[in-house]
Amino acid sequence: MKTYRLALIGFGNVGQGLAEILRDRGAELAQTVGAEFVITAVSDLLKGSVYDPQGLDAGELLTAVGRDGTLGSVVTPGSGWDALETIAQSNADVVVELSYTDLATGQPALDHIRAALAGGKHVITTNKGPIALAYPELADLAAQNGVCLGVEGTVMSGTPALRLGQELLAGAGVRRIQGILNGTTNYILTQMEGGATYAAALAEAQARGYAEADPTGDVEGVDAAGKVVILANLLMGEALTMADVRRTGISGLTAEDVAEAAAAGERWKLIGSVERENGRVQAGVQPVRLPVSHPLAGVSGATNAITYSTDLLGDVTLVGPGAGRMETGYALISDLLAIHRTTDA
Amino acid sequence: MKTYRLALIGFGNVGQGLAEILRDRGAELAQTVGAEFVITAVSDLLKGSVYDPQGLDAGELLTAVGRDGTLGSVVTPGSGWDALETIAQSNADVVVELSYTDLATGQPALDHIRAALAGGKHVITTNKGPIALAYPELADLAAQNGVCLGVEGTVMSGTPALRLGQELLAGAGVRRIQGILNGTTNYILTQMEGGATYAAALAEAQARGYAEADPTGDVEGVDAAGKVVILANLLMGEALTMADVRRTGISGLTAEDVAEAAAAGERWKLIGSVERENGRVQAGVQPVRLPVSHPLAGVSGATNAITYSTDLLGDVTLVGPGAGRMETGYALISDLLAIHRTTDA
Repeated sequence: MKTYRLALIGFGNVGQGLAEILRDRGAELAQTVGAEFVITAVSDLLKGSVYDPQGLDAGELLTAVGRDGTLGSVVTPGSGWDALETIAQSNADVVVELSYTDLATGQPALDHIRAALAGGKHVITTNKGPIALAYPELADLAAQNGVCLGVEGTVMSGTPALRLGQELLAGAGVRRIQGILNGTTNYILTQMEGGATYAAALAEAQARGYAEADPTGDVEGVDAAGKVVILANLLMGEALTMADVRRTGISGLTAEDVAEAAAAGERWKLIGSVERENGRVQAGVQPVRLPVSHPLAGVSGATNAITYSTDLLGDVTLVGPGAGRMETGYALISDLLAIHRTTDA
Repeated sequence: MKTYRLALIGFGNVGQGLAEILRDRGAELAQTVGAEFVITAVSDLLKGSVYDPQGLDAGELLTAVGRDGTLGSVVTPGSGWDALETIAQSNADVVVELSYTDLATGQPALDHIRAALAGGKHVITTNKGPIALAYPELADLAAQNGVCLGVEGTVMSGTPALRLGQELLAGAGVRRIQGILNGTTNYILTQMEGGATYAAALAEAQARGYAEADPTGDVEGVDAAGKVVILANLLMGEALTMADVRRTGISGLTAEDVAEAAAAGERWKLIGSVERENGRVQAGVQPVRLPVSHPLAGVSGATNAITYSTDLLGDVTLVGPGAGRMETGYALISDLLAIHRTTDA
């Protein structure tokens, strides 16, 4: 049985989802795949930080945070390290980078990932920011240090969209990728098809916690554009930046636009796309009217989907969740299993 | 660069599809994945057999068969071996089993696979018969001999349905699998939704080459049942046989049934399913009325699809081709790449 020691940088929703999966399914996983994943360090800016080289109890971490919102009640040999100290000084093999970040600078997550990779530790993250901004640099750094960089959760949460394209469709000749990559906007468009105005649909999305108080990142397509950059750079070997993505959001769509499409047997979807044509890559995010027969047209609500158009297989479409605590936590599990497959073989 | 030598047992549509991919994309593949795949032997009951330990030219094989339907014009150091001689005496690392077989006995493919695995050779196949009938035995034999058994093409041709479930959803807790696993019946049902009678839709499917003169295997759900057995045995660790699958085909569906479902906002689909409940596995193939909002309801024509219902991710659906010369040929490529990932790491 191989043991992997994890340091969690950030212990919000996703980190807690991972801890929950390890608590509830760790034993089953160990039996199935022959690997054990043990959290030895957690460092969270607000909740505090704890370290036990022998392993922390995932259930105890969750109970502590459930009680008073902090890790204060967890008694461990070590505590008080900030993120960079945890990365440098803990015994972790894998740094799980989950700190709060954004698509403008990707910080402080970006520096955490650089430090971990340079220190010879595997990194897994569900943070779009640093990966959209610096994947080519980080992938090089990982390769130079002989470690893995797992980013499955940055697109479609735990739905294995990236690994499908990168591993299972290798050699099929992926020429175009199109996706419904943002659940919030797809939920809003689905509500509008049900008769809601844009404003009412947005308010409902906010009430359900899908959209933030400032919904710009979702409705103007910024979030989807970050995912488009990741798809282009991971799967097509490009080095695009956010500025390379032509971007139009859904805030200009009216109830009339939606009704008009429906009357023509079509549906508006916010589509992120990357396409290689004549050696050049075109990347964009924009509302598109799809015929209902299109594989992406039937994807409703907060669900996400991606279509790979390939030379040998034609279109292959994957549909699944694009967010959620356990769903995103599972993305980290799938990255851990990939590290195990790579390093154990 | 690692080189893998292939012996093709059978050189029909799928074998020629594989040869075409290797001819047209072999160099690109070698560059991308660092492995070279060379055909050194072909043995076909009707087209003849050829062997060159240094490698046969895929283009020359295709040209020969295109010219007179046989390999007679290909001049090689060796020729005339039957399947078992080719398996035993060629220098192949990988036996590609593509001989004509069925779901009743799986022969002669089954004996070819046994011989190859026992002889320490990797086996890849797109033949459902032997895998539906004997997967547990064959998987054990492969493990005992330290070789791989690749069967991606037995379900949904090159669409990576099996590897998605087996590798990418490992640990997500797959509890139920439902799929549109037979393109012919899905094509017939789609035609019936367009207003055709069952008889007219079947005739059209036969005219297009989707259905055979005796369509029983497709329309009575036998083909789909074979795939259900494969899904249960590969992905849920069962040892089901064809007799364990409750099976109803589509030949009893009338135009009225289809119209009635449409009026209720539903669609008939022939669904193959495997479900684990209270430790017991239920497997079946039957026509099901799905609400149009169901992820499988929108899958039209000869396209196939599979939905994995999991504990951690909810439903994850993969949609793609289920047949075709290049599509099925690609399944073999993906099995070869998996062998390379496993043995090269």
